[in-house]
Amino acid sequence: MAIKEIVFIGAGRVATQLGLTLREKNKTIVQVYSRSLKSASDLAQQVNAKAITDLSLLSMEADLYIISVVDDAIKDIAAQLQLGHKLVVHTSGSVSMNSINKASQNFGVFYPLQTFDKKKRVDFTKLPICVEGSNAEVESELFALGRELSEDVRMISSGQRLFIHIAAVYACNFSNFMYLMGAEILEFAKVDFDILIPLIQETAHKISGNHPYNVQTGPALRGDKLTMQKHLEILKDHPEKFDMYKNISRFITNYFTTHTTNPASEKPTK
Amino acid sequence: MAIKEIVFIGAGRVATQLGLTLREKNKTIVQVYSRSLKSASDLAQQVNAKAITDLSLLSMEADLYIISVVDDAIKDIAAQLQLGHKLVVHTSGSVSMNSINKASQNFGVFYPLQTFDKKKRVDFTKLPICVEGSNAEVESELFALGRELSEDVRMISSGQRLFIHIAAVYACNFSNFMYLMGAEILEFAKVDFDILIPLIQETAHKISGNHPYNVQTGPALRGDKLTMQKHLEILKDHPEKFDMYKNISRFITNYFTTHTTNPASEKPTK
Repeated sequence: MAIKEIVFIGAGRVATQLGLTLREKNKTIVQVYSRSLKSASDLAQQVNAKAITDLSLLSMEADLYIISVVDDAIKDIAAQLQLGHKLVVHTSGSVSMNSINKASQNFGVFYPLQTFDKKKRVDFTKLPICVEGSNAEVESELFALGRELSEDVRMISSGQRLFIHIAAVYACNFSNFMYLMGAEILEFAKVDFDILIPLIQETAHKISGNHPYNVQTGPALRGDKLTMQKHLEILKDHPEKFDMYKNISRFITNYFTTHTTNPASEKPTK
Repeated sequence: MAIKEIVFIGAGRVATQLGLTLREKNKTIVQVYSRSLKSASDLAQQVNAKAITDLSLLSMEADLYIISVVDDAIKDIAAQLQLGHKLVVHTSGSVSMNSINKASQNFGVFYPLQTFDKKKRVDFTKLPICVEGSNAEVESELFALGRELSEDVRMISSGQRLFIHIAAVYACNFSNFMYLMGAEILEFAKVDFDILIPLIQETAHKISGNHPYNVQTGPALRGDKLTMQKHLEILKDHPEKFDMYKNISRFITNYFTTHTTNPASEKPTK
């Protein structure tokens, strides 16, 4: 039976983008719960749902309950739910599926792998959705729901998901911090940050046809000590940028010294 | 007088993409010099030029000589040229303009800020080109040439250019290395790298309307120690990823503890 009526527990960035997208796919968002009335109302209004701030008012009639709160609160909030056989999922990368096994007999994970923002709409069409279920029926229901939103739905275990989450920290959070360091270094020379945008976007696009091993460039890869010394000399009055430059360059040099061929080269990237 | 005939000294990635683009703008590429006949011929063929491997055969009739060799070789090769008043430039981010002052009385820098590949064509239309000249006339000639290729040509001093180059190392080389670490972490869990592509591309696109300070996310920013500990626990058998995760997370936490507002916030990004 296809999922039609959905309750959101949580009204943050993931809940907002997922809620708006589900609504566009003609799902009914019945309720949005949040401890904060303002948060609950903000999202409820956008998806034509009722806002609630009291879990005892939770509808028992929905087909799916989506827990989308901060990681640390997922287990606690699940323990407060008594949903019998109703399907309940969380949307987190780093929390195991079993953390919510108190809430219902049918539980799972529905983890869209993307960086979300409350305001900026996210296109789910090609977005990887990682699905896991407490039993085969749950998995097939979640898979079907995922496929209504995206071409790319994958069965991923809690163990794998944790690795994916760490990989995402590197690829998204750490990369953005590298952009930020770049922005600060430009500030020193009174150059606008926007000069870096085409380079950043090309770097991100290159990897869609190539493994990042094959497109790594730069002085650390080449072992170009002269350029690295010149850069460090310039950064010497900025200890955090100096240390980071030195550390990451050393990691790159070591990595390519010990990995002289791409460890993933037998598996061509799609 | 507009630049029409061009000689390339060097046949690497920058020379290839710049040469192909100049050719499309109806410039004549007269010669391509490289120590390696194969490299010289490869590019010469693509831009309908003569390949030479001997600097004494250099045409003295061109309007512009573009030195596009590895950074360490620029000064040496310039010292071998005797071009009188002919316009000569290099294309490097980290080498000062004066490094080539032996080659001619009119010299400068023409530095396209992008990551280049011999094969993948680069669209120059919106690509920032950093220009510097030994005198006002040189600057205006190089600026005009830049504007034939790109909407975004900037007068940038050698000092500023060096900061831009360091910023580019962070934003491009270091970011790509973060993608590579993400790819390796996925390997541990037998998950295909392509699962990260939409996240990487969204992360790179977010900063075109937002300063990276404002879009930083992740456990280190939130001070979410529980998640960071969980991640480190998983990485403990992979010392290089463990150390890097710990180091960069510490940099992020420290940075946001000491910079509670965006240092660039008075200057809204374009």
